[in-house]
Amino acid sequence: MAKLTEISWEAFESLPLEEKKPYLELPGGDGMPYHTLFAQQFDRANLERLCALANRIRFINKSKEGALYLKNVLSHKRAMLYFSQPSSRTFLSHLAACQILGMTTGSVRDAATSSEFKGESHEDSIRTFSSYFDMIIMRSPERGLAEKMAWELSNSERPIPILNAGSGKDQHPTQALLDIYTLVRSFENKGGLDGRTVTFCGDLMRGRTVRSLSYLLTNFKNVRQIFVAPQELQVPADVVMILAKKGIDFEVSDNLKEATRVSDAVYMTRIQDEWDSAKGDSSKIDTSNFKFGPEELALLGPDAIIMHPLPRRDEISTCCDHDPRAMYWRQMRNGMWIRAALIAATFGFESSIMNCGY
Amino acid sequence: MAKLTEISWEAFESLPLEEKKPYLELPGGDGMPYHTLFAQQFDRANLERLCALANRIRFINKSKEGALYLKNVLSHKRAMLYFSQPSSRTFLSHLAACQILGMTTGSVRDAATSSEFKGESHEDSIRTFSSYFDMIIMRSPERGLAEKMAWELSNSERPIPILNAGSGKDQHPTQALLDIYTLVRSFENKGGLDGRTVTFCGDLMRGRTVRSLSYLLTNFKNVRQIFVAPQELQVPADVVMILAKKGIDFEVSDNLKEATRVSDAVYMTRIQDEWDSAKGDSSKIDTSNFKFGPEELALLGPDAIIMHPLPRRDEISTCCDHDPRAMYWRQMRNGMWIRAALIAATFGFESSIMNCGY
Amino acid sequence: MAKLTEISWEAFESLPLEEKKPYLELPGGDGMPYHTLFAQQFDRANLERLCALANRIRFINKSKEGALYLKNVLSHKRAMLYFSQPSSRTFLSHLAACQILGMTTGSVRDAATSSEFKGESHEDSIRTFSSYFDMIIMRSPERGLAEKMAWELSNSERPIPILNAGSGKDQHPTQALLDIYTLVRSFENKGGLDGRTVTFCGDLMRGRTVRSLSYLLTNFKNVRQIFVAPQELQVPADVVMILAKKGIDFEVSDNLKEATRVSDAVYMTRIQDEWDSAKGDSSKIDTSNFKFGPEELALLGPDAIIMHPLPRRDEISTCCDHDPRAMYWRQMRNGMWIRAALIAATFGFESSIMNCGY
Repeated sequence: MAKLTEISWEAFESLPLEEKKPYLELPGGDGMPYHTLFAQQFDRANLERLCALANRIRFINKSKEGALYLKNVLSHKRAMLYFSQPSSRTFLSHLAACQILGMTTGSVRDAATSSEFKGESHEDSIRTFSSYFDMIIMRSPERGLAEKMAWELSNSERPIPILNAGSGKDQHPTQALLDIYTLVRSFENKGGLDGRTVTFCGDLMRGRTVRSLSYLLTNFKNVRQIFVAPQELQVPADVVMILAKKGIDFEVSDNLKEATRVSDAVYMTRIQDEWDSAKGDSSKIDTSNFKFGPEELALLGPDAIIMHPLPRRDEISTCCDHDPRAMYWRQMRNGMWIRAALIAATFGFESSIMNCGY
Repeated sequence: MAKLTEISWEAFESLPLEEKKPYLELPGGDGMPYHTLFAQQFDRANLERLCALANRIRFINKSKEGALYLKNVLSHKRAMLYFSQPSSRTFLSHLAACQILGMTTGSVRDAATSSEFKGESHEDSIRTFSSYFDMIIMRSPERGLAEKMAWELSNSERPIPILNAGSGKDQHPTQALLDIYTLVRSFENKGGLDGRTVTFCGDLMRGRTVRSLSYLLTNFKNVRQIFVAPQELQVPADVVMILAKKGIDFEVSDNLKEATRVSDAVYMTRIQDEWDSAKGDSSKIDTSNFKFGPEELALLGPDAIIMHPLPRRDEISTCCDHDPRAMYWRQMRNGMWIRAALIAATFGFESSIMNCGY
Repeated sequence: MAKLTEISWEAFESLPLEEKKPYLELPGGDGMPYHTLFAQQFDRANLERLCALANRIRFINKSKEGALYLKNVLSHKRAMLYFSQPSSRTFLSHLAACQILGMTTGSVRDAATSSEFKGESHEDSIRTFSSYFDMIIMRSPERGLAEKMAWELSNSERPIPILNAGSGKDQHPTQALLDIYTLVRSFENKGGLDGRTVTFCGDLMRGRTVRSLSYLLTNFKNVRQIFVAPQELQVPADVVMILAKKGIDFEVSDNLKEATRVSDAVYMTRIQDEWDSAKGDSSKIDTSNFKFGPEELALLGPDAIIMHPLPRRDEISTCCDHDPRAMYWRQMRNGMWIRAALIAATFGFESSIMNCGY
């Protein structure tokens, strides 16, 4: 196995993502991640194991006895949630995942509360947190910080795992995990995910969610991808190039209705106007044809699903909310289960949970 | 039993409060609330049961063994404290109540930290929280939001209880509960609350506390109410009308000293100038005769008590703080006990706690 | 034993620190503190007991069984962390200490979230917190507030301990404790702390850390102290006077290299420009000779250590970070252990932990 202690930061940083993967694995974990930094660390094997573990945890948690068993798994560990870029949703989902496993937690949810105003570097802050906690779950607008800290901590006296809960425009690996888990669950008794058609619609240019999920879907067989967006917000060339290189069947379109008719899953996304270079730029784009409403709902197949990473604005009409095919609320909850699975796996508890008596 | 799943939101919303009550009850709970939204859900029967349960929890918690028993009651549950209107006191009291019962918690204490800046509706935020937690304790400036969410969640795939921890100028039902519990406790070995005289003093127009407590006191027999306030801040007509309709003995006055002399409880309140329509309006009102100081203390009967929902400014002189009749600190702590009782009851643990061996 | 209930606030406040000490002790605790307010409460005897207890807790926590034993010690208690002056580091360290012992916690980390905007006094806020919690850990810019609250609470119906986590420019007793613990640990298998030379460098005028640690070192035998700083930031006269009066060997210098050569510990500190009377005052001082870099590292003895209370700016070059003599990261972690020891001792669990079977 490759080790972060045996490579310099400069050498590690310059590796392509696929080659970084082995350096981030749990020793003896058979491909499970120790540091979770980017979606490219996941392949079909560890994805399926994580989905199975999430299913197991979800099942065990149904009874009070089971819930108490799970709360004992990591009751001797403490997690730090360091969110210098605030996000209630992602924060609470990770928090709940920790709590299911019995971890106690500390948090910084706001850069302003932190002692950074005294001129401390992010690196020093995170090393400090590593003194008090056994895992760091971090969200930062700073690209590459999670990776740097994973290297730093693995080379310190107190190596502890880093879980990237979103870094800038860049990566948000557990979002991709929960999306895969939602797809896998939705089709698990209906023949599985292989051979399905997934449509992405909305701001495909700036949503890191789309980028990661599109990549992870290439781990499954014959999953066709359709990208529906206004021209200005279409999927970037590098995403398309990866698909082309891998021989994946995909299509670029501006017709949501047509795509809906042929899709097993429609993944709607929000216009990410917080990344506009000039305020209001996005509002000049006509997005009226890229919303999911009653007409689209009528075209959607009976076994197909609607997904959304949330928060939403008006991309999905609230009239869809009570439809059984609306999977976006359950998708949230799936995020909690798959994160609990990932954290348990990080600490080496995959097999003990899979094989416990509950 | 009436069910929220069998009535439309519009029909439910337009019901008078008393008729909403049965829709909010715990199935099989014999009148105990499931969603706690407004003070009008409480009648003498469930008030007395909640006070008894709070007494029991308070007693059990005295020993370490008892405390650990209680911490196991809801250790498999997680509560979300969603405080988009900040309040340390109410937040911490609910938090402590959860912790006594072993619930783990997540929180939003500040609208700014939340993802609402991305344009999400309150309804979506709360449905998200419902994905991760087993109960939502919410405080919001938005009138009716708690009620809407109770209906929404009861009609979702994941129905969980809502506890209203204060909604705008409107309702704050657990404040009313803790006030009743304080009165019940204070007189429990002295003949009870029936037949007592309770004086309210201060900003009776805008304090929702007064409104709720005045209502709940009508559940007891022959409790006389005296309202002492400057004319501009006197008790509103609708409160008085309820009392008149129910045949309750009450009096409107501007003489605190006289009222103190004949009262069993004097309930002081703060000028709520945060609701001033123009900044500084309240400061034009002469409130000098509506403060409880050494002279009033001298007039207070030996078994009578002084209450205040806190925070206070100068309505009660600090020279009263060490007097045994000053009940406002204990009133705080009573809030924690009665909230623990309410939460335990919401999850159906009333009888197991009442009958446990501790 | 002296009792806070038998002395007026005015009389207590006017006592010299040394004479306050007995009033703050744990009844039956043989010199251990109940309220922890200032560094002068510690003498060689209780320092050594606390270091031994911290060592014990650190050892027990290594196994999962041990960690679970510790989590049961104070699982029936709740702590309030009231940080009206924000500090992530100190906050998280105390939080982790509470969590190691199984205490649940509530917090205010920011004066703005609190209900103080409604005009409540600090005293009332803290009495409120005392209603819900069993200990208050507080950090406040207000000098003397912790002391006032200790007196207030000891004279209330609900006496609970206060732990001062930093009060203005004044006191930060647990920082001094962790510094002593780091020194004791670093030399425990090398002949101990007696007879060592400790250099303080940086902003010695305004760092309360230096003031407290300098005082605590006088509890050990023949510890020489060297103060290295630009003239404008040298150690204040009152600190020097205490040393002179006690016959302690000390030196005032502006030569860090020379001091490093002869020191067993070099304690670097940050320029505390947040206390500048005019913004930017500190930037006019030439601090270039008061930084620890590769040259100083080369002069440092093989068993000597580098300390820093963190956060740092550029007083210590990051090139020192991986040197085994750089003790500042471990110093952080020591803070967690010694705080856990202090809290356990405050609740009377010293001997049960020292004698437990783990």
